[in-house]
Amino acid sequence: MVKQERAARTRELLVQAAAEAFAREGFIPASLTTISRRAGVSNGALHFHFESKSTLARAVEEEAAEVIRQIGRSDAGRPGALQRLVDATYYLMGRLDQDVVVRAGFQLSNCAALRERSVDLRGQWQHWIEQVLQEAEREGELAAGVPAADAATVVAAAMAGFEMLGAKDRDWTSRGRLLPFWELMLPRLAAPGVLEQVKPAGTRLGAHPSRRQPPT
Amino acid sequence: MVKQERAARTRELLVQAAAEAFAREGFIPASLTTISRRAGVSNGALHFHFESKSTLARAVEEEAAEVIRQIGRSDAGRPGALQRLVDATYYLMGRLDQDVVVRAGFQLSNCAALRERSVDLRGQWQHWIEQVLQEAEREGELAAGVPAADAATVVAAAMAGFEMLGAKDRDWTSRGRLLPFWELMLPRLAAPGVLEQVKPAGTRLGAHPSRRQPPT
Repeated sequence: MVKQERAARTRELLVQAAAEAFAREGFIPASLTTISRRAGVSNGALHFHFESKSTLARAVEEEAAEVIRQIGRSDAGRPGALQRLVDATYYLMGRLDQDVVVRAGFQLSNCAALRERSVDLRGQWQHWIEQVLQEAEREGELAAGVPAADAATVVAAAMAGFEMLGAKDRDWTSRGRLLPFWELMLPRLAAPGVLEQVKPAGTRLGAHPSRRQPPT
Repeated sequence: MVKQERAARTRELLVQAAAEAFAREGFIPASLTTISRRAGVSNGALHFHFESKSTLARAVEEEAAEVIRQIGRSDAGRPGALQRLVDATYYLMGRLDQDVVVRAGFQLSNCAALRERSVDLRGQWQHWIEQVLQEAEREGELAAGVPAADAATVVAAAMAGFEMLGAKDRDWTSRGRLLPFWELMLPRLAAPGVLEQVKPAGTRLGAHPSRRQPPT
């Protein structure tokens, strides 16, 4: 393994170990020594990559933000804005459920008061929800009398709630919570003729992704 | 003013000042000196009432929990479970919007990882939502095919989202966000004949309460 690869792998091990410590113990109690030990690297190596616990927290948030960017990219050109929205919620909840880096990233960004700067993960996700619902409106997918902005309010609030409640009890980020949400909401959101085509359980594209592979 | 009254007033001033500091600066950066100065009392008086910043945080959470208990008490015997649910959401969002102690209490309980013990504000609120929706189901207020548990999932998630998003941007705890939520949800939740009787904007009983009176 060349030097650059090894450095990237060490960095990734540290981000993973930090996310585990933040999710389990909380940002304040988590110690850098525990994190470096869990990552199997020296304290010196940790400080080579990250100058402080806040820098590590930011790296965790940045990796979580990549999930939101992935959702945005995967959409390009695919028809069916409502189905894409449903699928994306299953995808994000699946990642929150299964990937400690994503989960810790959102938790850190909930407690933004802890640190001076944090990544606005939730703002990025809300922006995407608004955009896709505006697209649904333009394409005539939304029911009459349902403004895209109102639909976005409800979906964004519920997703923020699932995600936050999931930090304490992972049942909230499971399919068993998301399915009743969409079963209740879709008949109100979708125009006649569109409703029959949108699957509240999501399509294959929105299936829960497999567990994140730890770096090898 | 007798001694006991003065002590109670000082305590209340400290809780109010602590809530303002926690909401504005965050729990970690907020200093006890700022809090006692803002309350207009000495550092000694602060330490007489509260042994640490965590004890102060707990007092803020306890006061916020009183709002949930109020909601529970105000219900006793009133008919119309769905309307009571709608009204209670306006009441809680109004208190979150206007009362810094309630807002800070919920924020502190979001970041439970900060401290060892915290009051489970959200759990108490969810429990109440579940109970009132079970009552709506028993009384035939829920639409056919809408289990109380599913409705509770959606309402609890959305309320948690409004409350959390409101910590950064108070627009999320305004009537302008809650009204579209209920306008979208009620036609799905309420049985025919019940829907016409439930006001998505809430009734007088659920009106935004007036601003919390500071202790005099």
